[in-house]
Amino acid sequence: MTHFPEVPAFTGFNKPSRVEADVQDLDVQGVIPPELDGTFYRVQPEHQFPPKLGNDIAFNGDGMISMFRFKHGKVDYRQRWAKTDKWKLENAAGRALFGAYRNPLTDDEEVKGKIRGTANTNAYIHGGRLYALKEDSPALVMDPNSLETFGYTDFDGKMTGETFSAHPKTDPVTGNMCSFGYASKGVLTTDMTYYEVSPEGELLFEIWWQNPYYAMMHDFAITQDYALFPVMPMTSSWERLEAVKPHFGFDTSMPSYLAVVPRKPVTTAADIRWFKGPSCFAGHVMNAWNEGTKITLDLPVASNNMMPFFPDINDAPFDPVTGSTYLSRWTVDLSQNEEEYRSERLSNMIGEFPKYDDRVTGKKYRYGWLVVIDPSQPVEIKGGSAGGWVMNTLGFVDLETGAEQKYWVGPVSSIQEPCFIPRSPDAAEGDGWIVMVVNRLEERGSELLLFDALEIAKGPIATISIPVRLRFGLHGNWADAAATQSLEAA
Amino acid sequence: MTHFPEVPAFTGFNKPSRVEADVQDLDVQGVIPPELDGTFYRVQPEHQFPPKLGNDIAFNGDGMISMFRFKHGKVDYRQRWAKTDKWKLENAAGRALFGAYRNPLTDDEEVKGKIRGTANTNAYIHGGRLYALKEDSPALVMDPNSLETFGYTDFDGKMTGETFSAHPKTDPVTGNMCSFGYASKGVLTTDMTYYEVSPEGELLFEIWWQNPYYAMMHDFAITQDYALFPVMPMTSSWERLEAVKPHFGFDTSMPSYLAVVPRKPVTTAADIRWFKGPSCFAGHVMNAWNEGTKITLDLPVASNNMMPFFPDINDAPFDPVTGSTYLSRWTVDLSQNEEEYRSERLSNMIGEFPKYDDRVTGKKYRYGWLVVIDPSQPVEIKGGSAGGWVMNTLGFVDLETGAEQKYWVGPVSSIQEPCFIPRSPDAAEGDGWIVMVVNRLEERGSELLLFDALEIAKGPIATISIPVRLRFGLHGNWADAAATQSLEAA
Repeated sequence: MTHFPEVPAFTGFNKPSRVEADVQDLDVQGVIPPELDGTFYRVQPEHQFPPKLGNDIAFNGDGMISMFRFKHGKVDYRQRWAKTDKWKLENAAGRALFGAYRNPLTDDEEVKGKIRGTANTNAYIHGGRLYALKEDSPALVMDPNSLETFGYTDFDGKMTGETFSAHPKTDPVTGNMCSFGYASKGVLTTDMTYYEVSPEGELLFEIWWQNPYYAMMHDFAITQDYALFPVMPMTSSWERLEAVKPHFGFDTSMPSYLAVVPRKPVTTAADIRWFKGPSCFAGHVMNAWNEGTKITLDLPVASNNMMPFFPDINDAPFDPVTGSTYLSRWTVDLSQNEEEYRSERLSNMIGEFPKYDDRVTGKKYRYGWLVVIDPSQPVEIKGGSAGGWVMNTLGFVDLETGAEQKYWVGPVSSIQEPCFIPRSPDAAEGDGWIVMVVNRLEERGSELLLFDALEIAKGPIATISIPVRLRFGLHGNWADAAATQSLEAA
Repeated sequence: MTHFPEVPAFTGFNKPSRVEADVQDLDVQGVIPPELDGTFYRVQPEHQFPPKLGNDIAFNGDGMISMFRFKHGKVDYRQRWAKTDKWKLENAAGRALFGAYRNPLTDDEEVKGKIRGTANTNAYIHGGRLYALKEDSPALVMDPNSLETFGYTDFDGKMTGETFSAHPKTDPVTGNMCSFGYASKGVLTTDMTYYEVSPEGELLFEIWWQNPYYAMMHDFAITQDYALFPVMPMTSSWERLEAVKPHFGFDTSMPSYLAVVPRKPVTTAADIRWFKGPSCFAGHVMNAWNEGTKITLDLPVASNNMMPFFPDINDAPFDPVTGSTYLSRWTVDLSQNEEEYRSERLSNMIGEFPKYDDRVTGKKYRYGWLVVIDPSQPVEIKGGSAGGWVMNTLGFVDLETGAEQKYWVGPVSSIQEPCFIPRSPDAAEGDGWIVMVVNRLEERGSELLLFDALEIAKGPIATISIPVRLRFGLHGNWADAAATQSLEAA
């Protein structure tokens, strides 16, 4: 009998959903600007089957893609599984075959050597393809309209690394999709790869190097000339995997690094500059740019581990205070003989899931948005979202004036990563909207909120009812209508 | 902008859903007997678009079919619109074109003369076809597996009436689907038709006659030799429709009737026997049989109107006490010169949505199940279900011993029509299970409960989580796997 375990990860706010759905013309309160013509994609981890080991973390769920198609002031909704190799094998078996997160030692014999990816972390559009992404595996290609899965790609054999990050960035100047892999030669390897993929989908070049230690390399940044990699001591080992401990553990005894990789086909490991810093937690990046040799990288940083489900490697108790992330700025100057990066705090909001106007990727920019945890607001969610945080507030920063705005969504609500939508291709930076999923405990579904991007404190201009209950979601992106023509199944 | 009115019919418990969904392998608590191999179909009214006139009754929603496929102890769920002509016209327009329930005077000019049916009342399997049914229009044919809509049928032109009841009965002896129409020559006409359709889908014969007055003819019964039609004074007129009053109004000044129609191709109006009774409300029937000329019909009856949304024709206030329905037995003997039917109460439970073991249709039978309103139980549902009743209890009657059982589903819950599933084709009457939808206000979805049919008081043997919120539903049926082979699109 298929029955999910009655544990916090699968009950209450986190109850399984597993719904493939279509709803035309969602109910809208307020007004959707009629010029909005495109699609918001996002992904949530969802276990297709009860976890093999009896309990699990959200990050190990299978990818379920939601798309919201905006046109003529109406919104259509579609949701489909990202049908990874793992999903198909388990679907055929009618049960979970793969075990713990990033631990192949816990898998059934019959699936040894199969790609373990869940495609549960990001839904990214480039070159007319929808990429469903998980950092431990190749990119899964889907049709951006039907959400049909085509399968993993190695870019016609040109991608020789085993993994493709869930956080590619598209360079607005070249149109290239810039991405990377870690554990590129397999689980726990320190091998790194950097890739650029042309707008036509051709992998243009790879760069290979080694990290100083094995680390969760979740996100990175690009500038016009460099790719930037924060390295922080969220690490692992075969000993951990053999003991079936959580894959990652945080090691406060190890330093952090910033790697600066020239974005050139001729780059080798020797061309990479490394800058050291104290042990810290750096998950997602906001944006970065370089002015000649001077490099600026903005990212939320915590002074200690922010993920309670990946505990301290020496079993120190989780500390939510030092685990709080604040938008920070790391700077280096390549022309100086610096060995350390400089860090300064940009905001006192506890914030993560940073987003900005994608059209200024790699350039000096002004505006950012974050999911904020506002401890001053009451919380009434039983079960919370993954990890126990309640992400209850949308935050906005104007990095030029230092002005900030916040919008609190209420005591029974949890929000997900915001996404910026430009008003038009050539609108000024920040001129547009923010779209964001909110789950409310008391509602028998979810909502999509639409804000004027520079006026979030005024509250949403439109509330779009999603009659299907969404779960804790990870990342999402907006694509203008022109970017989402259906692929022919190849 | 598509926004549903913020009125009780479309908020809280009655919030629009409109979800076409697929979920494989629903979560099950308890045990589903592995021998269960077939499908439970049910339908809920759902407005595709906000109602044209600003508010509406549930009965005017578009049909949304849910199917639950049981096999090997697992359950798959699929939900699709019944795509009526009305649904397609409105879908293309992006808004409601048809107005009030059964009132063509309120429709847009462009859809005058189009079939107004919503297919929102029953989902019935016969001869490999799924029929989505609404009593004001022909039967809509759908594929029983994909739930693809094929369209309305007039049975190769052999059905000359305009309407086909939502409550056909399958004669277990002949395999014929027995059905009828009312308003068979159009809105408000008193013309009646009776049909029998062979297991191969051939319409075998029609009988035409006139009712004594225009009345809601929602259900009927068959015995081995007769078709039985309760006629009650839920009536209407062009004056009501011109004034855009609710289509039906209840007239306590008019008598009720029982019409007895011989189930023979040669029957004419002159062969029909009419028996009179007091004004009363008779909605659904349980079952009926005849022993020679002696006819027995069991049905829930109220002494006055039970539907507050179809008010008293003279605007008398709705009375929930006299509007309560009790399972009753009407009897007549055709060999006597009787002018009135006899009526006796069989149960003191307030019950409607009567169901029994379909294999004894038209035969003397022993067991029945009903949706019961138990006023002794606390109620905590804001918004309630359609009409304001809270149907909170499953009831069971043993008509041989008089024994009764009840199962209360809790203060925040509303149930829907139960459905009997035989353990095997030749199992004894009542040997099997009851399946029933329950909506719980606090849950972010719905449930399907499975009971041992003769032991409902023990509570469900399995609770199947439906992660999509179902709405107030009407009727449903079970079909063994053999009965639901896919039709080829004709």
